[in-house]
Amino acid sequence: MNRLIIKGNIISADSFNNISIYENGYIVAEDGVIREVTGKLDRKYGSDTVTDYKDALIMQSFTDMHLHAPQYPMLGMGLDMSLLEWLNTYTFPTEAYFRDEGFARSAYSMLAKELIRNGTTRVVMFSSIHRKATLILMEELDKAGITGYVGKVNMDRNGGRDLEEETGESIRETLKWLDECKWENIKPIITPRFTPSCTNELMQALGKIAEERNLPIQSHLSENVSEQEWVSSLHPDCSHYYMTYEKYGLWNGRTVMAHCVWSDEEERKAMKESGVWAVHCPSSNINLTSGYAPVKEMIREGMNIALGSDIAGGDSLSMFSNTVSAIKSSKARHMMLEGKPDFLTVEEAFYLASSAPAAFFGEKPGFAAGNPLNAIVLTDSSLPSVRRLSVKERFERSIYRREPHAVKAVYSNGKKVL
Amino acid sequence: MNRLIIKGNIISADSFNNISIYENGYIVAEDGVIREVTGKLDRKYGSDTVTDYKDALIMQSFTDMHLHAPQYPMLGMGLDMSLLEWLNTYTFPTEAYFRDEGFARSAYSMLAKELIRNGTTRVVMFSSIHRKATLILMEELDKAGITGYVGKVNMDRNGGRDLEEETGESIRETLKWLDECKWENIKPIITPRFTPSCTNELMQALGKIAEERNLPIQSHLSENVSEQEWVSSLHPDCSHYYMTYEKYGLWNGRTVMAHCVWSDEEERKAMKESGVWAVHCPSSNINLTSGYAPVKEMIREGMNIALGSDIAGGDSLSMFSNTVSAIKSSKARHMMLEGKPDFLTVEEAFYLASSAPAAFFGEKPGFAAGNPLNAIVLTDSSLPSVRRLSVKERFERSIYRREPHAVKAVYSNGKKVL
Repeated sequence: MNRLIIKGNIISADSFNNISIYENGYIVAEDGVIREVTGKLDRKYGSDTVTDYKDALIMQSFTDMHLHAPQYPMLGMGLDMSLLEWLNTYTFPTEAYFRDEGFARSAYSMLAKELIRNGTTRVVMFSSIHRKATLILMEELDKAGITGYVGKVNMDRNGGRDLEEETGESIRETLKWLDECKWENIKPIITPRFTPSCTNELMQALGKIAEERNLPIQSHLSENVSEQEWVSSLHPDCSHYYMTYEKYGLWNGRTVMAHCVWSDEEERKAMKESGVWAVHCPSSNINLTSGYAPVKEMIREGMNIALGSDIAGGDSLSMFSNTVSAIKSSKARHMMLEGKPDFLTVEEAFYLASSAPAAFFGEKPGFAAGNPLNAIVLTDSSLPSVRRLSVKERFERSIYRREPHAVKAVYSNGKKVL
Repeated sequence: MNRLIIKGNIISADSFNNISIYENGYIVAEDGVIREVTGKLDRKYGSDTVTDYKDALIMQSFTDMHLHAPQYPMLGMGLDMSLLEWLNTYTFPTEAYFRDEGFARSAYSMLAKELIRNGTTRVVMFSSIHRKATLILMEELDKAGITGYVGKVNMDRNGGRDLEEETGESIRETLKWLDECKWENIKPIITPRFTPSCTNELMQALGKIAEERNLPIQSHLSENVSEQEWVSSLHPDCSHYYMTYEKYGLWNGRTVMAHCVWSDEEERKAMKESGVWAVHCPSSNINLTSGYAPVKEMIREGMNIALGSDIAGGDSLSMFSNTVSAIKSSKARHMMLEGKPDFLTVEEAFYLASSAPAAFFGEKPGFAAGNPLNAIVLTDSSLPSVRRLSVKERFERSIYRREPHAVKAVYSNGKKVL
């Protein structure tokens, strides 16, 4: 049994609107799994080595529940364009490059390292349609110590010249890819790009594969109004976008749907009842002028919500930055809408980027016993201050400062990866 | 005569919606003043040394037209609070600490260095009420190579226990401070905090000092609705907030007014006619849920507009970050308002952070001949890319990536300061 003890000012997002703080506390992990968090170390650990981070903050690391790995090379470009122009000028041509395995290797190795440097240790991620590049992505994430799910994208219509599969080929490549997945911590997830990209035949096949192999599912839902209209014209039998997934067995408690900006009450109810996860991607929704998802209402309704960077509709891989974006996005609603709906606090937004998604992975919120140790160590000693700040104040400041170089150490699944 | 020639991919914000690009171009400066920007170096410079930044981008450095130096130690804290709670818990107690000269020296030295590291070389800045700390601030900015204006704050009412001056004392200290200002590049600016903080007697005295000594003026205007109502109750003779400045001679072409979120058409017209500068502070206006200034309409109306970080209502000193915030803030209006008003493009927002404020300093837009050389050199070579990017794409990506460590060199007023 391998025991790891780290010491510092521990911040644990134990519930949606409250963090627990252990000043000069300890996290004890055994074989990578948290055994306890405590303010005072039990005598029984007397002979164990303690890694003492002194006055540093120790927080849960981030989970990014929605991002497109092959859009990493276009991060921060084309964001003045309309959605369609952006897709055709940047997104599709960029993703098409990932047929080149050498390019995929170098871009994905950089991406994996940048995720870790920013304190993101877990992802639910889109790859491209390319089987080989997807395997390379999974390998590079695994090598960097990242855990989570990666999906080879399926897309047999409306993909343009270089980014469309034939239906049979899409299914065959998916099965082949699934057989080639071999990583313990990076697992496959079924990934129809979104309803307009997949024929009914493909959707049906993917639903069957997900069921037979007991796999989770990810896609996009109700990101903007014209997309909803498009889906409605493709599936006139469905009164709601979500039904186009539901009818093919792609809608259950292991389904992750990005955006849900325009999901109405009925669609939100269907998400709640099935336990489907809505991923709020505030940066992307602003950049592409999609809208402002009613996050706090969704939480109040009992839905499963987490945050995603959605690069490269989103402009930052940093979940510090996306946590701040979630707060600001909720403040936009507070300012602009009748009734001034509540905005997200820092604790609440951080919860959505850390503890909330943990439930998708079968874990408890915060640094709970039984969870794998996923943590970042943050130093802020170079910042000025007029008085001794509380740990909670330093936590808030660290989120807002969103400085990658403040991340001094990262633990993923019990291992030190930075 | 001292000649400086730098080479790289030059980006010059020559007009509001267009940047000029000189690939592998040259900037020639003589005694700190730009003589020319050119794609091909004239033979007459044959014997001069060229500092070759190779494939790096060379852009104008940033001007931050509104920020509160003594709020630097509280950056990123208390932003879940309501405005009044935030002022009482953070702002006023933090500013009060600047009576301590040792603390002021260390905090302001850090602030000046962080500004330069982020590529901000020029400021129009609030200090606190403290004369000595204000002089220390000016000295530290000057030492770091920053240029611009700094104001000792005047505040003889509604300042709380530790942050209020007597009227006579406020005037005497201001005159004393003005006599002690001795820097060529950091100059004084008259700074009534805002109308509710200054008695009529003080406002009158400040207007007189500004006129007699030919000094510029800065304050706050129409940041939020309850502030407007407060001002209206203090000055029942004024139908508009701006008139409370105008009637004391604090309203002219050298006046800088932060926020102007809620300035109506008449107030905006008064700004245009007097040439008053409106400083848009998008991060702060979102954080404190003040509102969204109609920036593009104001520009269309012919007003003078520039950007400010407004730390610590704003959460980032980086003008890369505030440029992105300006875009996002305009996209919020685009999404939420009837008629979908245009949003700011990257070029436009960058113009507001660089060339627009240059006019306040009597300069022309872009790297124009006759302007002092204020420039940053940015490298982005560590980022992946699927193809050779245009300089314009790299410019956009550099703004969105907002990475301090991308800033490799900074020139301020013709001198290399980083």
